[in-house]
Amino acid sequence: MKDHWGTAVNVQTMVFGNMENNSATGVGFTRNPGNGENKFYGEYLINAQGEDVVAGIRTPAPINEYSKSEYNKELTTLKKAMPKIYKELSTYQKRLEKHYKDMQDIEFTIENGKLYMLQTRVGKRNGPAAVKMAMDMLKEKLITKEEAVMRVSPAQLDELLHPMIDPKAEMEQKPIAKGLPAGPGGAHGQIVFFSNDAVQWAKQGKKVILIREETNPEDVEGMRAAQAILTARGGMTSHAALVARGWGKCCIVGCGSLHIDYDKKELTVTGGTFKQGDWITLNGTKGNVYKGQLPMVRSTEENVLLHQFLKICDSIRRLGVRANADTPADAKRARSFGAQGIGLMRTEHMFYGKGSDEALFRLRKMIVSKTADERRKALDELYPYVKKDIKGVLEAMDGLPVVMRLLDPPLHEFVPRERSKLEQLANDLNISHEELMQRAESLHESNPMMGHRGVRLGITYPEISIMQIRAIFEAAAELIQEGKNPYPEIMVPVVAEAKELESQKAIVEQIYKEVLAKYKLKKIKYLYGTMIEIPRACLVADQIAQVVKFFSYGTNDLTQMGFGFSRDDIGGFLPDYIKKGLLPVDPFQSIDQQGIGELIKIGIEKGRKTKPKLEIGICGEHGGEPKSVHFCHKVGMDYVSCSPYRVPIARLAAAHASLEEKGKKRTKKKQQKKKKRKKK
Amino acid sequence: MKDHWGTAVNVQTMVFGNMENNSATGVGFTRNPGNGENKFYGEYLINAQGEDVVAGIRTPAPINEYSKSEYNKELTTLKKAMPKIYKELSTYQKRLEKHYKDMQDIEFTIENGKLYMLQTRVGKRNGPAAVKMAMDMLKEKLITKEEAVMRVSPAQLDELLHPMIDPKAEMEQKPIAKGLPAGPGGAHGQIVFFSNDAVQWAKQGKKVILIREETNPEDVEGMRAAQAILTARGGMTSHAALVARGWGKCCIVGCGSLHIDYDKKELTVTGGTFKQGDWITLNGTKGNVYKGQLPMVRSTEENVLLHQFLKICDSIRRLGVRANADTPADAKRARSFGAQGIGLMRTEHMFYGKGSDEALFRLRKMIVSKTADERRKALDELYPYVKKDIKGVLEAMDGLPVVMRLLDPPLHEFVPRERSKLEQLANDLNISHEELMQRAESLHESNPMMGHRGVRLGITYPEISIMQIRAIFEAAAELIQEGKNPYPEIMVPVVAEAKELESQKAIVEQIYKEVLAKYKLKKIKYLYGTMIEIPRACLVADQIAQVVKFFSYGTNDLTQMGFGFSRDDIGGFLPDYIKKGLLPVDPFQSIDQQGIGELIKIGIEKGRKTKPKLEIGICGEHGGEPKSVHFCHKVGMDYVSCSPYRVPIARLAAAHASLEEKGKKRTKKKQQKKKKRKKK
Repeated sequence: MKDHWGTAVNVQTMVFGNMENNSATGVGFTRNPGNGENKFYGEYLINAQGEDVVAGIRTPAPINEYSKSEYNKELTTLKKAMPKIYKELSTYQKRLEKHYKDMQDIEFTIENGKLYMLQTRVGKRNGPAAVKMAMDMLKEKLITKEEAVMRVSPAQLDELLHPMIDPKAEMEQKPIAKGLPAGPGGAHGQIVFFSNDAVQWAKQGKKVILIREETNPEDVEGMRAAQAILTARGGMTSHAALVARGWGKCCIVGCGSLHIDYDKKELTVTGGTFKQGDWITLNGTKGNVYKGQLPMVRSTEENVLLHQFLKICDSIRRLGVRANADTPADAKRARSFGAQGIGLMRTEHMFYGKGSDEALFRLRKMIVSKTADERRKALDELYPYVKKDIKGVLEAMDGLPVVMRLLDPPLHEFVPRERSKLEQLANDLNISHEELMQRAESLHESNPMMGHRGVRLGITYPEISIMQIRAIFEAAAELIQEGKNPYPEIMVPVVAEAKELESQKAIVEQIYKEVLAKYKLKKIKYLYGTMIEIPRACLVADQIAQVVKFFSYGTNDLTQMGFGFSRDDIGGFLPDYIKKGLLPVDPFQSIDQQGIGELIKIGIEKGRKTKPKLEIGICGEHGGEPKSVHFCHKVGMDYVSCSPYRVPIARLAAAHASLEEKGKKRTKKKQQKKKKRKKK
Repeated sequence: MKDHWGTAVNVQTMVFGNMENNSATGVGFTRNPGNGENKFYGEYLINAQGEDVVAGIRTPAPINEYSKSEYNKELTTLKKAMPKIYKELSTYQKRLEKHYKDMQDIEFTIENGKLYMLQTRVGKRNGPAAVKMAMDMLKEKLITKEEAVMRVSPAQLDELLHPMIDPKAEMEQKPIAKGLPAGPGGAHGQIVFFSNDAVQWAKQGKKVILIREETNPEDVEGMRAAQAILTARGGMTSHAALVARGWGKCCIVGCGSLHIDYDKKELTVTGGTFKQGDWITLNGTKGNVYKGQLPMVRSTEENVLLHQFLKICDSIRRLGVRANADTPADAKRARSFGAQGIGLMRTEHMFYGKGSDEALFRLRKMIVSKTADERRKALDELYPYVKKDIKGVLEAMDGLPVVMRLLDPPLHEFVPRERSKLEQLANDLNISHEELMQRAESLHESNPMMGHRGVRLGITYPEISIMQIRAIFEAAAELIQEGKNPYPEIMVPVVAEAKELESQKAIVEQIYKEVLAKYKLKKIKYLYGTMIEIPRACLVADQIAQVVKFFSYGTNDLTQMGFGFSRDDIGGFLPDYIKKGLLPVDPFQSIDQQGIGELIKIGIEKGRKTKPKLEIGICGEHGGEPKSVHFCHKVGMDYVSCSPYRVPIARLAAAHASLEEKGKKRTKKKQQKKKKRKKK
């Protein structure tokens, strides 16, 4: 509302609930906002006004048996105290809900034995309640399936997918620290400061929360073992935040008031000092840290209802939903969450985390190779590891498409830092430590994000592409021979120019022929496509579309280069930008529709101009963010892809986008009709 | 020509110059291709065929006195040997030139005393000759001024602006090494390997060539003292290449076959070993390195003629030409080269090179400041240095616009690496070495090119912007009081969003008011504008244009982020891209018109849609590259800006662009007329 609009004046009769004991005031919900049950729920106070209920000095009494809790079970219900009034109120609440076709939050006052309804409005509810009410009202034919879908917000659905701190317990606590809500839900555990400790303690059956200044790939196992992750530094797109969100794990980052003493294994906040083993509780949805072990709740009925609800969403949405998954286990999880394929398998992720040692060692050999021969030898050793992972994911997604991204990060990211690993590598390569260091250093880059990575590696070292493409086709061929139906989509990353794709396409077609011959197959179903993540790619998308069958927008990198914002370095200024209102939101969280979105649109228009049936999707975190999903729908993408835990949210958001579009079309038609009528 | 076109067959009578001594063959130029003099110039051989002249077994004789040289002065001229034939030939050459209105390269044969003309075509010429011929033919009314302008190519003009190795001497030499032609012209000198040595030797009056693996800002003084720079590593946009081109200095980079032994002060190439003090000669236009001291030439008449020629260009071109200059000396040079203003003054360049010690020390204090108070104090100390430089440049360009870019690079670039400098800094700030190191490290970034720089610094530390803006306005105010006419254009770099510019604009307007009051002035003429170098800025240019009066395209950074190519890291793959034909040219050398050019066009269209009179220019190296200048003309920019030494080339290229456009319009009109006639 604008300042100069002023305020309207309402003149209204006042009623009094504080006219002795035949007066009262209260609030009620036509259904339980905590769990959605179709039961009248509320509280009241005899001889009081509305503000007394809010003030919390006197404990309000339950209006009926159903509304009783630990705190008020001894008090007399309204039903018992004023049965006639309660009956009247009960009739009204039913009528109001039927009229408004949604759960109502009502306020009433009883003045000298006469009931006055003060207010009614749509009642707020938590996630589990929202889904239950929507499904119940649908069954009661109070609302249509479209309305049911619109009744649940993505944020409510998100609540449903994670354990929560018991709301009542949380209300009684004050946070000891606040950070950024990087991974949703609640978690409690004993604090540890090192990844190894997290792994060890978890093995002993303990619940732990891993606390770090910030995390890096070497912490992945500890993060996996922990209930939740808490960091002092980093933003919503820091390593900890990205990994945790991908796993659907509770996580708080950038909690600046933490002081970590790794030597003493101690954490100091304004509220005191905590030692390793002390309990804390995190609310990752809000970014709050609490002392001690708060109780957790998890809605039980959710799975069946949620499944039904999401099926309705599926029947409404146009946009496909895929998941980003790198391992067979993740792929299976994605499938169970309703993913219609894998939108991004990062083939290099087998080099991180558990069980990566051997594969990583061989990758490192390949990286520090100096000649094509050395490199080919190392790649041959690497081949079985790569093929195994690819085959596993293709098998898990049998019948559904799997977008496999060829090697993406700059090679130096994989060069080891520990002396022992470097020595092992030098020995195996039969070169001196100095020589190895020299080779490793020559890989160093000033701005690795814009350096020698992605397709650029495939151009200078075609043997790397050859190995990966062979692994994809041979994995698919083996599955076909096993009676399966694999569907790989080969995706080339970091592309700026159509000719880069032509050069890699020649390799793909050559290897395809070789593999068909080797396995005596007539065909392997596959698509050849590219990631669109470099601004220039959008501008020459018409040329690129001549070479490929699909585009997948990598909006993280597109945002980095479109804004000139290095995701690793935005900590120094982006918070200021948000605070001062220079940007409405973090563009790594929700697609910047004005700028980056414009670039995306240009790419889609140009691409579809060349190839009208071009498959277009989005991978990367934006694919699971509701506003971005709406945007993807609007610009005509075929699917979004996001981390498995966000698939249900994307399914809902996609359904919302479809309904919103229909609503707009209806409104437009109505307006056109009106215009026509006027003309007549 | 396409392969499948095949070859045409010509059937022609043959004549023989080898029918005894009344036969001969020869070649001639209607004017001297080496200096442009309007004299008939050529060679011939008695009793020979054309291939004998080419084969070089017999020394050809001069056709006339004018054509005599050291090598053939003893031989009989054609004029003397066959005076009638010579007279006939002389008539023909004059007629041919008159007919074709350009210097002709003719071939003739004399068979048994009869002259046959075999061929005539436009003759190749060097830079000085091209300008002289164009100006002479214009005076002779053989050609129009437009034709005169078209007769000189930018590459020929470039030759004219630099000393050259004597072409004859160079032809007799084989290069000992080849690198990238990073700075044009020729140079000879004694080799040194350290910047200090270069400075010392130059002080003693010696000519030196500085040889380094690669250069960095600490080498600037040595580079300045040297005749030329030669590096083993780096590309066309490496530090050495950029600095040398800016100075118009001869430079060869990326000369991979050099092996430098800094300890022994020795250079080894395939051809042998060179010690400090040995002479070498560089051809920076070709990238060739020669042993020894080859003689240099520099056309003498050039200045007057060149001046006249460029004035004609100026009368034809629409596009303005400014120069990039950071110091008063550079600004004066720019003005003498015909710059109509400064398109880019990098205010931070006062912190590099000669005499920068004190200012740099204060800048460093500012950078490692932790509180706004500390920072303000350091900024106060820095203020006089900044103002002095700005005032000097404004004064040198009196009456012409000077675009001043606010602080651009990430701060950590200025953090010293030497222990002694760090200690001095810690002492002055009264903090421990450890504390200082910690502060310095906290500035480290993963991808500094996309990090905390440019306007982002002004957003988080407004006091930095305030200091710079005050320096600009106070410098201008002082000049006005001194009767001068300064015209600063304040340019905000690294902008991605209109609100960034609003925030800085508020500062500009506040300081403007304060300075007017302080100096009791009514007005200081200035413009507020922005660099367009982030892809997103092009996409939201309509919003940006609401806040500013001018755009200046920073096509270097726009290319970096548009392609996702870090200029410092392209060495690993860009040469491969060019070699394999994935890109036609290095996009940092010539604007990538398909991709980055598209982005530029979008920005111009959107900007002018909001503000039709928006001043639009380009700064950065592309502004002096002829193809890019054509592009800038075509898309409707107001001016290009480039290093002072490239200003004449830009003036010529801009005139070419205007003429090309007119030519196209004429062709179009003709075609339309033809169509009309056909219809009739």
